[in-house]
Amino acid sequence: MNDSRLAGPVRVVGSGLLGTSIGLGLRAKGVDVILDDASPGNLSLAVDYGAGRPSAPGDAPQLIVVCVPPDVTGRVVAEELAAHPGAIVTDVASVKVQPLEELRAAGADLSRYIGSHPLAGRERGGAVAGRADLFLGRPWVVAGHDGISHRGGSAIDGLILDLGGVLVELTPEEHDRAVALISHVPQLVASLLAKRLTGAAASSVRLAGQGLRDTTRIAASEPELWVQILGANAPAIVEILHAYRDDLDGVLAALENPTAPGARRAIAEVIAAGNAGVQAIPGKHGQDRRYAQLVVMVDDRPGELARLLTEIGATGVNMEDLRLEHSPGAQIGLAEISVLPEVEQHLTDELESRGWRIAGASL
Amino acid sequence: MNDSRLAGPVRVVGSGLLGTSIGLGLRAKGVDVILDDASPGNLSLAVDYGAGRPSAPGDAPQLIVVCVPPDVTGRVVAEELAAHPGAIVTDVASVKVQPLEELRAAGADLSRYIGSHPLAGRERGGAVAGRADLFLGRPWVVAGHDGISHRGGSAIDGLILDLGGVLVELTPEEHDRAVALISHVPQLVASLLAKRLTGAAASSVRLAGQGLRDTTRIAASEPELWVQILGANAPAIVEILHAYRDDLDGVLAALENPTAPGARRAIAEVIAAGNAGVQAIPGKHGQDRRYAQLVVMVDDRPGELARLLTEIGATGVNMEDLRLEHSPGAQIGLAEISVLPEVEQHLTDELESRGWRIAGASL
Repeated sequence: MNDSRLAGPVRVVGSGLLGTSIGLGLRAKGVDVILDDASPGNLSLAVDYGAGRPSAPGDAPQLIVVCVPPDVTGRVVAEELAAHPGAIVTDVASVKVQPLEELRAAGADLSRYIGSHPLAGRERGGAVAGRADLFLGRPWVVAGHDGISHRGGSAIDGLILDLGGVLVELTPEEHDRAVALISHVPQLVASLLAKRLTGAAASSVRLAGQGLRDTTRIAASEPELWVQILGANAPAIVEILHAYRDDLDGVLAALENPTAPGARRAIAEVIAAGNAGVQAIPGKHGQDRRYAQLVVMVDDRPGELARLLTEIGATGVNMEDLRLEHSPGAQIGLAEISVLPEVEQHLTDELESRGWRIAGASL
Repeated sequence: MNDSRLAGPVRVVGSGLLGTSIGLGLRAKGVDVILDDASPGNLSLAVDYGAGRPSAPGDAPQLIVVCVPPDVTGRVVAEELAAHPGAIVTDVASVKVQPLEELRAAGADLSRYIGSHPLAGRERGGAVAGRADLFLGRPWVVAGHDGISHRGGSAIDGLILDLGGVLVELTPEEHDRAVALISHVPQLVASLLAKRLTGAAASSVRLAGQGLRDTTRIAASEPELWVQILGANAPAIVEILHAYRDDLDGVLAALENPTAPGARRAIAEVIAAGNAGVQAIPGKHGQDRRYAQLVVMVDDRPGELARLLTEIGATGVNMEDLRLEHSPGAQIGLAEISVLPEVEQHLTDELESRGWRIAGASL
């Protein structure tokens, strides 16, 4: 069975997390997937996982997806364009200006290349973390340029549709500025903050709550990959970091003399601007819709949370989101249930009538 | 019934989130709670919620808990010490050096004052958000000083034990440095980052994933309160922010010339130090224990998550934590289940045999 929008075989170069996931997703659509990797071990692993087959003499791929680290993306794309003169080539690197510039400098056939970037990273990498649905419902940026042929664009569109991604068209420059803002600068800010915790007294860190955990979670990311990403998108990141540092300097000046005229206002304006920034982030399902939150107390023993969710299901209310919080050392957890505002009261009444204790406010 | 460790009436001054929650918790223990608030409306609301009664002539509180904003904490504590010469007085402000200095300067009777700080904040404030279990299992810092009487210390201990808090003893200076690190600097860093999102193109922000959401969540906090907290702990915050800015300057210099010798190493060291910092934060139940994560795909319809948790309960495996992720626009969610590493394989096998799809790696 082949229910793909792609006509011919797809060659995937690089069988890490993204390459393996693309292979798995296309195989599920019945597409013939040819895998390659500089490491024979990685290649075998991805083949074992069912992400595709090794290349064979006479293979004529329609589309080539280059899934290698940002540092080598330009070079590998150029090699693939040269080795497969009938194929359209794309890549999935998380920067888009630098590979295009490298290809221009190398005189590559840009009519057959169009860069792309699926926003579907994970903290863990490698073929072992790959999965067919990795791109489902995720934004997948296609970063076009003037020289691309129509045939090239439509092959990429087919790939993204096959894998369930949400196509977003941006120029390479727009893309790089966007990911600097929503991914690269947050990564650096989180890493710099988490760095402050190294060598801190245990008596300090044991006071940490969910706020610190959330703020630093992505600081657990892999250094090797991030050095490449940050290095390859340096100009866009530097621009945002300069503005960030100017604001930081303003706060520092205010805090160094907190009773001076204007100091409190300077601090308040940063916190208020942060409020506005958080509001600008779209919520679940990509909407900016606001949900009501109920906090329910749940005994910390097996089955209690399942019982709660079963009873919520029985009320007919659709739960939009769920967040759990455990107090350190406590035998109780708190479940924050997000629902549409118009059903909040109904759900509260139903749960209370079933004996659940509601705290009535968000965590 | 009075099963409290406290002998006499407790007077709570300020009926916001913390004051109301303290009143509710002590009332549940049978303690006579006297509430006061500068706003008659706030006071009535907290009384309506059952957090205590208004003061009456002849009241002789054993313990007074001052729950007012940081800016006025020193002044209100001094007034309470003077008005109730037989009472021990504590406060719950999130800074501890400044109120003590104000009391010293005012010549207050410090033998009856001992500062404290329960780490139990929430994004939402006011009596309406109060609950009796707010402090359950949360750290509650007691910030002693040399002049405190033994009787004072034991009254505070009774209060914390009654409310289920976990007593942590620090000096006022240690406390202020600790909260600067784990709460005040993260708040500023998150606000400064979220500020960058104001005015950003919608096409950029729509690419945002869970990383940006987590990193900026606490930037939604209330400006008025945070201006007071940050202003009152300025020296400790400034010290950490200077170190943070030095690191930021190092990264900026490396990114301004990313191909220079040493630039990549400078960036890698910040990311690696961030890895180490995240490891330093204790996990659930205050332990530094590491869990294994399973990611299970769950259809986005009522009852599916409940069914998953019911079946996990049936396997006898205790779920240590749960995190949900929804892809924007997708009809599927991912549930990340944390379990002890030794039961991960058993749970994976059990769930797969029941038809659940496991991604096998953390979100």
